Amino acid sequence: MLTKADIKRMRSLGDKAGRTALGLFVAEGEKLAGELLASDFRVREVYRVGENVSASEMARISFLRTPTPVLAVAEIPSLRAVTAPEGLCLALDDVQDPGNLGTIVRLADWFGVRDIFCSPGTADCWNPKVVQATMGAILRVRVHYGPLERLLSSASAAGIPVYGTFLEGDDIYRCSLPPDGGIVVMGNEGKGISPSVAGLVSHKLYIPPYPREMGPTSESLNVAMATAITLSEFRRR
Amino acid sequence: MLTKADIKRMRSLGDKAGRTALGLFVAEGEKLAGELLASDFRVREVYRVGENVSASEMARISFLRTPTPVLAVAEIPSLRAVTAPEGLCLALDDVQDPGNLGTIVRLADWFGVRDIFCSPGTADCWNPKVVQATMGAILRVRVHYGPLERLLSSASAAGIPVYGTFLEGDDIYRCSLPPDGGIVVMGNEGKGISPSVAGLVSHKLYIPPYPREMGPTSESLNVAMATAITLSEFRRR
Repeated sequence: MLTKADIKRMRSLGDKAGRTALGLFVAEGEKLAGELLASDFRVREVYRVGENVSASEMARISFLRTPTPVLAVAEIPSLRAVTAPEGLCLALDDVQDPGNLGTIVRLADWFGVRDIFCSPGTADCWNPKVVQATMGAILRVRVHYGPLERLLSSASAAGIPVYGTFLEGDDIYRCSLPPDGGIVVMGNEGKGISPSVAGLVSHKLYIPPYPREMGPTSESLNVAMATAITLSEFRRR
Repeated sequence: MLTKADIKRMRSLGDKAGRTALGLFVAEGEKLAGELLASDFRVREVYRVGENVSASEMARISFLRTPTPVLAVAEIPSLRAVTAPEGLCLALDDVQDPGNLGTIVRLADWFGVRDIFCSPGTADCWNPKVVQATMGAILRVRVHYGPLERLLSSASAAGIPVYGTFLEGDDIYRCSLPPDGGIVVMGNEGKGISPSVAGLVSHKLYIPPYPREMGPTSESLNVAMATAITLSEFRRR
């Protein structure tokens, strides 16, 4: 049986301060919890309805609208700081919606992107909503947090190309994209790429609408859609 | 001031039965309501906080977690039945998540797809969540509902290619896609394309992961992501 303190501690993993204090995150559902148990992550606790918790206790500790029979708690991994990114990487400049971040992590996994570098203002990848939205991809992709300016400056100095999508960029379907990688920057949902990061982009790209002559409509592509199309363009060549 | 009956009528537009009975849908927010007013849609009612409703009344009629100052109600357009689809079209076979449908409508708008054909089991495009998720694209794309089998059979008979993504399909990056259109079928989130519809697909496609040799991981791409990549592939050529 869970004590009030147990439940309070579990609920605290719903916000970043709580996760940071305990160094833990939550993964729910047979499939995701199973993948977590099979991974290199250090699993601390596993709750199963009918074994060590009741259905009503699960409802209190779950972050899902419809709780599943299993919930696992694991340690947030500590990553070594990356100074020289390898292969194709993503950099997220204040992507704030947890659903978008989850989708982007899933896309990274699909397209063989091992590292995602996030500005401090980007949503936390260990937020339960993000973990669930990644469908397990969070266990395979490394998500780093820190100022993007330093990383992008050192990448530029090392000759690594830095890409970003801008209205005045080159048509992504027609320009050459090197096969040996680089960093693709995706911006905030409303504001796009911030000026200090935009200044470090070496190759400006543009995803044209169809027909091309139409020009951008009032609403551009959502950041997750733009990531899907951009990664697809890099990887198909 | 809104009466109880007014509020009840507005709340009824949150479910399909209510929308069908009244033939109306809701669009919220300055931008979306503004686009609606500027469109050919027949707007029946506009509610503005401080003009004809109070903030607390808006909170009761709004379908948003954070209500905006404006909410418009318009007539659901009646579409002519399409017998011979023109250009590039989408067909959705039981896409059930309103967020996915909203994203797909937005992608269709971006990539110049005028018509989306939905199976009866697909989410309703006039659901307030879908309308909001389309960011106005629902005002420009025509969404039809009806059995897909009949449409796809007549398309096949007319020589219109029907595409769908399958694990055993041809690599979408390497096969030829005709520029003069066709119908792209996207399947249900869990079950994919149903057998009766799959039998009518003339060209099976496959979006490979990277590296290709990896093979599909446990989780395939989400239907909205697959739509983004597929439409991008059709339109870039």
